[in-house]
Amino acid sequence: MTSEPLGIGLLGYGTVGSSVDRLLRERADVVERVAGRPVRVVRALVRDAARPREGAAPGLLTDRFEDIRDDPSIKVVAEVMGGVEPTLGYLRELLERGVSVVSANKQLLARYGAELQQAADRGGAQLRYEASACAAIPVVRVLQESLAAAGVDELIGIVNGTTNFMLTAMARDGRSYADALAEAQQLGYAEADPTEDVGGADAAAKLAILASLAFHRHLHIDDVPFEGIDTLHDDDVAFANELGYAVKLLAHARLSGEGIAASVGPVLVPHEHPLARVSGSFNAVMLRGREIREIMLQGPGAGGAETATAVIGDLLSVLGPRESGTAFRELPLEPASSARSPLYVHLEVTDRPGVLARIAARFGDRGISLGAMIQRPHPGDLASLVFLTHPASEENARSAVDEIATLDFCHGQPRVLRVLAA
Amino acid sequence: MTSEPLGIGLLGYGTVGSSVDRLLRERADVVERVAGRPVRVVRALVRDAARPREGAAPGLLTDRFEDIRDDPSIKVVAEVMGGVEPTLGYLRELLERGVSVVSANKQLLARYGAELQQAADRGGAQLRYEASACAAIPVVRVLQESLAAAGVDELIGIVNGTTNFMLTAMARDGRSYADALAEAQQLGYAEADPTEDVGGADAAAKLAILASLAFHRHLHIDDVPFEGIDTLHDDDVAFANELGYAVKLLAHARLSGEGIAASVGPVLVPHEHPLARVSGSFNAVMLRGREIREIMLQGPGAGGAETATAVIGDLLSVLGPRESGTAFRELPLEPASSARSPLYVHLEVTDRPGVLARIAARFGDRGISLGAMIQRPHPGDLASLVFLTHPASEENARSAVDEIATLDFCHGQPRVLRVLAA
Repeated sequence: MTSEPLGIGLLGYGTVGSSVDRLLRERADVVERVAGRPVRVVRALVRDAARPREGAAPGLLTDRFEDIRDDPSIKVVAEVMGGVEPTLGYLRELLERGVSVVSANKQLLARYGAELQQAADRGGAQLRYEASACAAIPVVRVLQESLAAAGVDELIGIVNGTTNFMLTAMARDGRSYADALAEAQQLGYAEADPTEDVGGADAAAKLAILASLAFHRHLHIDDVPFEGIDTLHDDDVAFANELGYAVKLLAHARLSGEGIAASVGPVLVPHEHPLARVSGSFNAVMLRGREIREIMLQGPGAGGAETATAVIGDLLSVLGPRESGTAFRELPLEPASSARSPLYVHLEVTDRPGVLARIAARFGDRGISLGAMIQRPHPGDLASLVFLTHPASEENARSAVDEIATLDFCHGQPRVLRVLAA
Repeated sequence: MTSEPLGIGLLGYGTVGSSVDRLLRERADVVERVAGRPVRVVRALVRDAARPREGAAPGLLTDRFEDIRDDPSIKVVAEVMGGVEPTLGYLRELLERGVSVVSANKQLLARYGAELQQAADRGGAQLRYEASACAAIPVVRVLQESLAAAGVDELIGIVNGTTNFMLTAMARDGRSYADALAEAQQLGYAEADPTEDVGGADAAAKLAILASLAFHRHLHIDDVPFEGIDTLHDDDVAFANELGYAVKLLAHARLSGEGIAASVGPVLVPHEHPLARVSGSFNAVMLRGREIREIMLQGPGAGGAETATAVIGDLLSVLGPRESGTAFRELPLEPASSARSPLYVHLEVTDRPGVLARIAARFGDRGISLGAMIQRPHPGDLASLVFLTHPASEENARSAVDEIATLDFCHGQPRVLRVLAA
């Protein structure tokens, strides 16, 4: 029995849009399990539908918004085209007609979020926007649902990956601001015109969205004073480091007295603070409150595929509560010992010549090569021998150790622990 | 216009249950905004209803399950009583009758989760269990909703706060296992009988719950081989540290070949790995996949109020999608500069005697006291002067700096950055 697919319309078919289309196809089995029915992108709005796009099925692309608005098979629209006009008009129209919308557009939401939400309420539609802040890090949903009444009273975030990449390069590798920016542009972390990132406007838009949810009070981007890292001097980063701090572009909002104080700017963060350790293009958001104490979410804050997973999570939520029983599948369990990993081995041995050689030989016989080693004599004639092996089959290593444990110079129970790769 | 309150039934009125009741009362305004109607605990099942409990309203407590099951005003039941019997029977009955259930019971869910989910599906009820793993860290919802189709292929977690507290004390303060356990018990992190925590069964139950959601395949606790930290020797922690690793009790599951490998045990984690830095009683869960790359959630993994916030998040989700327009409130914005914080001040000055004294005096006049200072001569007769102030009003400090900038020995634009408290 095949059921009618659920249709998705895309506004935009750039990096994020084409990733949404591709992932929904690649993951068709899991998506169908979760949604209870197949889910398919049926139409995508682009500026020039005649120009072919890799991966786009024939007939997918259109340059007429009406083709999406008037297609009765489209249950939800994902907006990944960006910009304020004509996007705002499209979304308002869809929501008022009762078509739910998932949007990745932070500048739009930070300016017209309240208005769009009202349009959604009028039309009886849903508006979801996980992808508008911090890509795949599920901070929008966590604030909106998990922590809806949890009393968040402070939000501190590193919400711009470009500037965090640059600040990391400046602090760790001693790069100048100019070099760090050039490298970010080369790696695709920064746009040709990086103003929105380095000037702080991107972070301010995200803070407006997140603080609105955290404190249940609409903040417009104009409510968030912002400063970027473009006014920093290279030596500020060096001096801060010398004083025990990392410079981070922080989005910071808190309940203060009777109101909300929100701002974006470069801040010195003590090296031992968890936010100081968020490096490269990663994002992190720390949420504080009396009961939740301190919850932190971190992960990649940008990228086409990363953002697409957030869009898809929202699409599946809009498509409705699944029959949870259908979401599971058959999959065999494998013994954990079948894994290969480096291992820590601790042996208690008689401290006499030749012991180490005999142990090393036993490991060698089984093809297990040894990395770091510590030999530590104890009072008496015993010693601890500690090895780190190179990645090895755990089963194999445990057999070798069991064998070694039977040798006359071995005492007590050897201990074998797995080592996590860095 | 007041609307009929939504009724909650509690099974259990211990630390978590009484916190749920208290928080729903303390946060009545925000809860009502989110749910669209007042929400109230109307009945709580306890073993001995005659024994008074602090905070419990008259008539709240009952020792008859029927009083909850048959109360038509109860829309959702939160199960915070623990144990397998009679809890399982109660929940099955409620779910089959169409009453949604929120549960904090990890051992029950790790054993009978599939069965309870089927009962929920039969009754058309919801079963939610955020509080069953990692308290207020919203990892259940993130896996179940945000990342439902995101292709998580590995989950590595520190999901037991007791053992993480002990391992941190052993590694950082050189405590013995016995001392660390005694301290954990004294601080209320460990039970009088700590077997479930130190032996790994608690972590295995949580891993069964989380891996089931991550991989869409029911795992029973018996599917998760586990080892605790009770077989570790004190010197293993010390040797690991010497080799560059922290020992952590990891819950680890991954898609491996055609199956799932899941296990709980002590593992050496490189010091530079984010999980090595999760210290004390905190929990963290790292989720990996091709598109999401690496998302990590961390926060307090236990505690009555912390767990209660997870229960309340689930209750509000069951009570239904709010009219989002109603969730917002009026609240003034405060200028961020009204805040007090330590500040970083960078001045470019002529390098001559008396300059530092004159600057210090200006700050002193405004009641701003200085902490760390760096003076760094440049080629020529200029020098950088960098100060960290003690917490000061930002507005006040900026005025002082503006004044100083007008002095004849000052060059260029001074830079003032906020400093985040540790």
